[in-house]
Amino acid sequence: MAERTYGEIPGYPPGSTFANRTELAASKVHRPLQGGICGGQDGAESIVVSGGYVDDEDYGTEIIYTGQGGNDPRTKRQIAHQELKLGNLGLARSQLEGYPVRVVRGAGGDKKYSPETGLQYSGLFRVVDHWSDIGTDGFTIWRFRLVAYESADTPPPDLAPSDVASEVTRVEATIQRLVRNTSVAVEAKRLYDYTCQICGEQLMTPAGPYAEAAHIKPLGKPHNGPDTISNVLCLCPNHHVLFDTGALQIDPEGRVVDTINNAIVVDLQLTEKHPINWSLVEYHRSIHANKKQAEK
Amino acid sequence: MAERTYGEIPGYPPGSTFANRTELAASKVHRPLQGGICGGQDGAESIVVSGGYVDDEDYGTEIIYTGQGGNDPRTKRQIAHQELKLGNLGLARSQLEGYPVRVVRGAGGDKKYSPETGLQYSGLFRVVDHWSDIGTDGFTIWRFRLVAYESADTPPPDLAPSDVASEVTRVEATIQRLVRNTSVAVEAKRLYDYTCQICGEQLMTPAGPYAEAAHIKPLGKPHNGPDTISNVLCLCPNHHVLFDTGALQIDPEGRVVDTINNAIVVDLQLTEKHPINWSLVEYHRSIHANKKQAEK
Repeated sequence: MAERTYGEIPGYPPGSTFANRTELAASKVHRPLQGGICGGQDGAESIVVSGGYVDDEDYGTEIIYTGQGGNDPRTKRQIAHQELKLGNLGLARSQLEGYPVRVVRGAGGDKKYSPETGLQYSGLFRVVDHWSDIGTDGFTIWRFRLVAYESADTPPPDLAPSDVASEVTRVEATIQRLVRNTSVAVEAKRLYDYTCQICGEQLMTPAGPYAEAAHIKPLGKPHNGPDTISNVLCLCPNHHVLFDTGALQIDPEGRVVDTINNAIVVDLQLTEKHPINWSLVEYHRSIHANKKQAEK
Repeated sequence: MAERTYGEIPGYPPGSTFANRTELAASKVHRPLQGGICGGQDGAESIVVSGGYVDDEDYGTEIIYTGQGGNDPRTKRQIAHQELKLGNLGLARSQLEGYPVRVVRGAGGDKKYSPETGLQYSGLFRVVDHWSDIGTDGFTIWRFRLVAYESADTPPPDLAPSDVASEVTRVEATIQRLVRNTSVAVEAKRLYDYTCQICGEQLMTPAGPYAEAAHIKPLGKPHNGPDTISNVLCLCPNHHVLFDTGALQIDPEGRVVDTINNAIVVDLQLTEKHPINWSLVEYHRSIHANKKQAEK
């Protein structure tokens, strides 16, 4: 397994510039001389955003990044499907593990955030979502949403207790998973008395039951799913993780499908008071379609 | 069920001052005229920190707050055990649900952060932990760690997509659950190949397995548990929630105890390569002891 270095590289703070990829690789901020993603099955440590993919979107502290593969570097167009392997798998692992990803911007990227020449290290981002899509050119692409640790949305990777005597002088930590409560989340959970709509389990704690509201069409860019009860399921944390990663999908008959073993697991539990919007369920299936489905 | 208002009260930004509890109650920033916690079994919306409890600790953006009950207001000493009910249960629910809690400081509190006279609204905090302890006066107390949303540790309760066209104009959200990855977390997860040490399940996603590292003695104030492999378990998210809330404990023989039904569930799975520190397991039991255990 590759020896990876996650987080800042000493001597290269955000803002550091590099004349070219050779200089960048030598700094270890982004080691590959050509690839856009430095990563593999164990995780990804850095990416370069340089306008190489037509589907990239750069919002400064938030980036919608296109995975690697199937791209014709001459035309910058997709000419084949991408798969969830190599660097793409690395970015997905970095999301699941909560690794910080170094983001480097190149001169070819969005003018608002990219250097005029050469390359610039922008800082640490975390991967908050990954999904598949049919790109502008009609092929499956993998997409990743990255949010800067410096943004208001994200705590920095450090929770050092600073002003009390402690056996821990400094605990480095990054976010592995962040579950948010929105205005309709509690409504959904009460509708099912905090039992999971997939397994029927209710996690009971000394402070009462615990469940999570899972948005079917995700909130945030670029999905912008609505925060309405029709877009929310009440799930236990385990099934929330499996649903969000596409390991589980809901088919048009309301059955829960295990996409890894390609098997129907159980019927989704639904009360008649819960007006699910089935077009949002279809959206969820579409962003977690595997390559075979895309080729249909 | 009480109708609760979570979050800011319009017209009363952080820094707002009040001459006395009557004025404070009229503002609805903290409605009770006497109680320190405005909350019940559905959640807690606000607290007053005013030096009424000898075990309170105020660090500005972080507060270790003592629950209510068993306190003699004349002497400020504990004279009976506290229980996880009423306002205490409310604060625990606010943690599990991810509700923001309004914090008001009174003149009797820590001089560094409290007003000289009257009361002052300090802003929104989130409850990040709750546990029981034997207080300075020898009785069971419930304690809550609150962290300011304004602190670097915590994203603000708002993830509005701001600069793209969207069907969501503003999504209000607070943190319900935040799982962190620390330097030893990955080591622990690999040791068990991402299978839960309690249920033996491995959550498999299209991007590989998912598990969480649970610290036995919690990180952060006031526990300051070490970030070492001897203080970490590899758990699925469901069992992580149950372990952190004390619904499950590990007994000295390494058995998993369901504290709600007072039953031994299963043996904790342990590899010989995993040097658990059993004094940390004892610490975990001690902070989730129920009243009966405290009375022994």
